[in-house]
Amino acid sequence: MRSDVSQQVAPVALRDIQRSVATELERVAGELRRIIAADFPIIAEVNDHLLRMKGKLFRPTLLLLSHQAAGGGAGAVDPRAVTLAAVVELIHLATLVHDDSVDHSVLRRGMPTVNALFSHQVAVIMGDYLYSRAIIELVRLDDLEPLRVFARVTNEMTIGEMEQLEAHDKLAYGEAQYDQLIRAKTASLLGGACEVGALRAPAAYRAALARFGLRLGMAFQIADDLLDYTEPEAVTGKPSGLDLKEHKMTLPLIAALGAMGPEDRRLVAELLATPEPADGLVVEVIRRVAVAGGLDYARRRALELAQQAEAELEILPASPARDALRDSIAYAVERRS
Amino acid sequence: MRSDVSQQVAPVALRDIQRSVATELERVAGELRRIIAADFPIIAEVNDHLLRMKGKLFRPTLLLLSHQAAGGGAGAVDPRAVTLAAVVELIHLATLVHDDSVDHSVLRRGMPTVNALFSHQVAVIMGDYLYSRAIIELVRLDDLEPLRVFARVTNEMTIGEMEQLEAHDKLAYGEAQYDQLIRAKTASLLGGACEVGALRAPAAYRAALARFGLRLGMAFQIADDLLDYTEPEAVTGKPSGLDLKEHKMTLPLIAALGAMGPEDRRLVAELLATPEPADGLVVEVIRRVAVAGGLDYARRRALELAQQAEAELEILPASPARDALRDSIAYAVERRS
Repeated sequence: MRSDVSQQVAPVALRDIQRSVATELERVAGELRRIIAADFPIIAEVNDHLLRMKGKLFRPTLLLLSHQAAGGGAGAVDPRAVTLAAVVELIHLATLVHDDSVDHSVLRRGMPTVNALFSHQVAVIMGDYLYSRAIIELVRLDDLEPLRVFARVTNEMTIGEMEQLEAHDKLAYGEAQYDQLIRAKTASLLGGACEVGALRAPAAYRAALARFGLRLGMAFQIADDLLDYTEPEAVTGKPSGLDLKEHKMTLPLIAALGAMGPEDRRLVAELLATPEPADGLVVEVIRRVAVAGGLDYARRRALELAQQAEAELEILPASPARDALRDSIAYAVERRS
Repeated sequence: MRSDVSQQVAPVALRDIQRSVATELERVAGELRRIIAADFPIIAEVNDHLLRMKGKLFRPTLLLLSHQAAGGGAGAVDPRAVTLAAVVELIHLATLVHDDSVDHSVLRRGMPTVNALFSHQVAVIMGDYLYSRAIIELVRLDDLEPLRVFARVTNEMTIGEMEQLEAHDKLAYGEAQYDQLIRAKTASLLGGACEVGALRAPAAYRAALARFGLRLGMAFQIADDLLDYTEPEAVTGKPSGLDLKEHKMTLPLIAALGAMGPEDRRLVAELLATPEPADGLVVEVIRRVAVAGGLDYARRRALELAQQAEAELEILPASPARDALRDSIAYAVERRS
């Protein structure tokens, strides 16, 4: 039954995954625009900028596919699922705006961040604006269940962000801490998207899809952290080696440190002790992380999580949506941006 | 029937206002501690700091008094009102943490702000943490109505914060803009506190108390802006003249500008054009604002709003809680810190 994602060679296009929910996804952007609309000039300007950034709508895709796969069925999508899909993207946007401000990031999806284009002040206020609009919209749907899931998830994400502040400059930072961090920071919202999509489904489907989203989300974040080591800025829209420059301890480095000799560890320590490490030093550490097997380890771990995610789908009846969810695992692990 | 607050001489002590809800207020601090509790070390540390700051619990007081005055009755307080009172204080705290970070404030209630004691990063994340905990708690109460009010109010507050960014360095900034700003930034939450306290009361009481809170809140903010011109740091816990130093256009200055001659206006323009104005210049502008009648104008406007707030209470049956709400108007207008 199971197609082994670890053997997958051809990368899966997001467009293919989104095929069975394409009509709904087209309406998500309009819903998003409606929910965040504002009269006040600066807010309207930031909104326009954010809407131009046009994300890949991966979280809305997961929500809508989970909705279909858990029983919504193609063509029988609850219209509220489209609104919930817009809300999950909105929550994602709100956290990106704050994260970029906290991290002093200047680029996101190849475009300037809100803090870079406007100011840190505007970014802090806009994150709050967007998040409170998401809550208003959830209240308008007159259903406490999605609110319960998204409130829990956004709180987990803030804890993840705080954990990330600790995930710096520490040779002793371990894989268990990293797992906890990516679960809170990234996987919780993907799990929440799948769970909310399946809220009206039988409890067993709902729980399986929540776990599916969590595992998928962890694999997704590991793949993201790998991109920082493997892909140039032209592909990702973010400067490469940025995590290392910012002394962020991610899985390739954490795994490599366990296998490195004293000389390599000394070089890593030097980088972590340098406030603004030169490109040459960053490139050399990236090379040694690869030689020490850090990239391979992280890839294996992502595939392990991908297989766990795939196993969660077995309980669901066969459907094009379930197939698309399975393909989304390969997309999350193999994507290059 | 009406005691004329504008004639009130002896300032009203907050303790007296809080007498009929003293038992409930004692439980608010414990509820707050429960709602924000965290395992993660930095979050627990920030929580302890915030709980040590111990505010005056003015918003919980208004919520509980509104609850009693609208029919809850002394001794018949819904236990959920205590939780809602803790939530309104928590929402206030979350916005203070972000506001201080946006404003780069270093002192609040005589103690270091989160951004000063920890970092801007920690302040941004903690604001999100606290606000999402408030939402979780509101969901737990299994009632969409308080959520509806607080979600609307927190969104209004973010718009107010954005408006505040515009309320800088502008000789042309007018009273209508100022009114809109203080309504969104401050009055909305006081109105929300009163409205949520009266959610189970007849619609007419609920609407009157919402309007009462809005007027009271506007008077409260004008009084606060006056303190910056009149009170030394030792009394308020904030450096005096800070708004002027930061080029914030508040009512005393806006009103004075309308009455000032060209020479005085030139001095104000000079201050607004100076990135870090010297104390001597700030003191001189404060003096001229007073001479031009800016302080008197702002006091008159606060009293006008106070009388409008008081008029809203007339629909309520006589009770100690209603008397305490009336006294809270005098407190808001006459307080010195």
